[in-house]
Amino acid sequence: MLMYEIDRNASEPVYIQIYDFIKEDIESGIIESGKKLPSKRSLAENLGVSVITVENAYAQLIAEGYIKALPKKGYYAERLPDMPVQKIKKNEISAEEYSSGNNKLSELFPFTAWAKLIREELTMKQTTLMKDPPAEGVYELRQAIADHLRSFRNMEVKPEQIIIGAGTEYLYILIRILLGDQSVIAVEEPGYSRIADIYGSLGMRCEWIPVQDDGIDVDALKNSNADVVHISPSHHFPTGVVTSVGKRYSLLGWAAEGRYIIEDDYDSEFRLSCRPIPPMFSIDVTDRVIYMNTFSKSLTPTMRISYMILPPPLLSRFRERMKSFSCPVSTFEQHTLAHFIEGGGFERHIRRLRRYCKSRRDYLMKLVSENELFRNADVSGSSAGMHCIVRFDTDLTDDELLTQVRNMELKADLLKDHYHFRPEHDLHTLVVYY
Amino acid sequence: MLMYEIDRNASEPVYIQIYDFIKEDIESGIIESGKKLPSKRSLAENLGVSVITVENAYAQLIAEGYIKALPKKGYYAERLPDMPVQKIKKNEISAEEYSSGNNKLSELFPFTAWAKLIREELTMKQTTLMKDPPAEGVYELRQAIADHLRSFRNMEVKPEQIIIGAGTEYLYILIRILLGDQSVIAVEEPGYSRIADIYGSLGMRCEWIPVQDDGIDVDALKNSNADVVHISPSHHFPTGVVTSVGKRYSLLGWAAEGRYIIEDDYDSEFRLSCRPIPPMFSIDVTDRVIYMNTFSKSLTPTMRISYMILPPPLLSRFRERMKSFSCPVSTFEQHTLAHFIEGGGFERHIRRLRRYCKSRRDYLMKLVSENELFRNADVSGSSAGMHCIVRFDTDLTDDELLTQVRNMELKADLLKDHYHFRPEHDLHTLVVYY
Repeated sequence: MLMYEIDRNASEPVYIQIYDFIKEDIESGIIESGKKLPSKRSLAENLGVSVITVENAYAQLIAEGYIKALPKKGYYAERLPDMPVQKIKKNEISAEEYSSGNNKLSELFPFTAWAKLIREELTMKQTTLMKDPPAEGVYELRQAIADHLRSFRNMEVKPEQIIIGAGTEYLYILIRILLGDQSVIAVEEPGYSRIADIYGSLGMRCEWIPVQDDGIDVDALKNSNADVVHISPSHHFPTGVVTSVGKRYSLLGWAAEGRYIIEDDYDSEFRLSCRPIPPMFSIDVTDRVIYMNTFSKSLTPTMRISYMILPPPLLSRFRERMKSFSCPVSTFEQHTLAHFIEGGGFERHIRRLRRYCKSRRDYLMKLVSENELFRNADVSGSSAGMHCIVRFDTDLTDDELLTQVRNMELKADLLKDHYHFRPEHDLHTLVVYY
Repeated sequence: MLMYEIDRNASEPVYIQIYDFIKEDIESGIIESGKKLPSKRSLAENLGVSVITVENAYAQLIAEGYIKALPKKGYYAERLPDMPVQKIKKNEISAEEYSSGNNKLSELFPFTAWAKLIREELTMKQTTLMKDPPAEGVYELRQAIADHLRSFRNMEVKPEQIIIGAGTEYLYILIRILLGDQSVIAVEEPGYSRIADIYGSLGMRCEWIPVQDDGIDVDALKNSNADVVHISPSHHFPTGVVTSVGKRYSLLGWAAEGRYIIEDDYDSEFRLSCRPIPPMFSIDVTDRVIYMNTFSKSLTPTMRISYMILPPPLLSRFRERMKSFSCPVSTFEQHTLAHFIEGGGFERHIRRLRRYCKSRRDYLMKLVSENELFRNADVSGSSAGMHCIVRFDTDLTDDELLTQVRNMELKADLLKDHYHFRPEHDLHTLVVYY
């Protein structure tokens, strides 16, 4: 069955989105020519849309010659006259393809498009490239990010609020400068250990707050000395927990008393199914949320481009304290990226990445369903990102478990290794990466 | 008279250097065809080399048909058969060219060469570009910088000691992390106000130490609470003072007792005449000097690439404290720059920039010698960089002086404005920028 992610907040009507997805899949060969498409009713059910919507999409595809309707038989993909070379892999991948996947994500980087864009910039925008941008970054890029967030994340952000940084660590440095060295920062337990490591290197004091099934423990947070908390409410690493709406409001309530929330939306582009939850930044009316994101996962970590969105009070503080600083990212790459986003290349690239991740997730799930070791295992957190959590029903020790799973050529590590205060008992739980 | 900067520490013999300079000037039209060259004796005197050396250079040029010797008349530039289009301007520039010079430096950026190199990298090194470099930066770039410093600055540095940063501010952040937040940093008075501003933003305490005719006041430094000093011994901004050898050793003595010297060599590539003084880093045997440089002036500030060289004890501290950090500069640009330096493009570019600065300096000096306002004025600090200091013999106030000089379409500001503790009386001294 075709699985597409419909964005109900997009400016494009849903039937156009479905039309676009199918058209692209036919052009790229994911839907082979001559193949039967699902019935209107079953696709509608699957995507959670009305039959009329699918009918409109199919009608448009018929009109443009992408599919044909055979009476009493259904809809079939047409043989396209100028079928391009099949570049994108089918959703199903082999074990060999899966285990060689480590390099694949980087191979997906759009080198050709990027080379073309950067050459254009170097030819056409020489004077602009030599101009010092403000400390916040190149305006065109901030504008492109604001537009992207509007259509992709349904966020209303002014380009003026966006600060470009050289990777997330640089943003942490800015936060340290903005909040001062007396701040105590709460981080998630378990979590990305690098976050606390970096704040620690910058001389900030950290407190570790447990993550529950619906997000960080707000009571523990209230009992701590923290005046700022760094969380990933959309998709927590490694547990995959999505912070509930109730908890989001409790957190905002906590922050309203002069504190701050850093909302780390690091893998929002990788949502594989279901509708994305709006970021906390969008429901915050008290100006206490700092939104943070990066192009490390959606493009490449080696280009070092990240950004954060500051609420107005911190924005004025930024302008005052950072007036002697320059934006640390090359104007060459800022302008090229702006161009890439504006021209639609970035969204196409994300769709490609997401399809790739989904195919790897599906392969993993198939493996899980067939393998004895995974019997009664509980898989969670697989609706987004590039990893999931598997809780095993087993008497094996964590180390034995890890060895067995790694022998299956899966990339995995122990959940307990992601704790700062590492539990002494086994959790029988692994983080498995697609 | 031809003025070339001979590098006695270069691997190339001096006569080859002279040969290269003259050949390049003939090819580019700076020395017009048919023009008489200086006599061997006078050129030798001027460059401070032996007559034999110039004779060898001229002999090579004759052998290759660049110049000819006319008996009893001297040496003349030949008419070249395939004279390339005259791209490089003659050393003499007009008033109009001078006053439109603000954009010129950026126009000199080697866009075509850069575009070619980056395309090569994007085509040939896709896997490499996607690899996370160590926190210190891409090894190839650090190797290229080490080679450049060896041939250009006579510095013996291991690539492992070099740390790549995103502009100098990023290096200041690293220094703050390496030295801890209790450090008190001494800065030069007068000096670049941004240096103290940035250290201040990072929460470091600054002390301002007067700069004397031979460098920073070491006695005042000893009486301060500073445990690290940030200086530019090769060419102080704005005074142009070069720190004397005696003072360099006093400073090293001060630092030997557990303190550090940050040697900011920001414009070492712009030495316009005389032999460059070896950096303090090279005479330091106690591992107390941190050397710092940037590509902001030699390429463009908008690309944000700088570097520092750490003595071994700080290098281990860097590896320990920065292990969670990534190098903030894009691998795309690090590899392209490495390629640019290795291929000789960077040295050619520097020669071009230097010629450009020299022509602007010469124009300024001519103006100074002809203008009544400058009568009895004392010009200093003009042997390097892109500015000089002019002390006027005048009854005009500083503001009147500035207005008059600016009316001559010169770019200038007041020396007293570069003080943190601004003197209340007039100094009758301007900083004039080429």
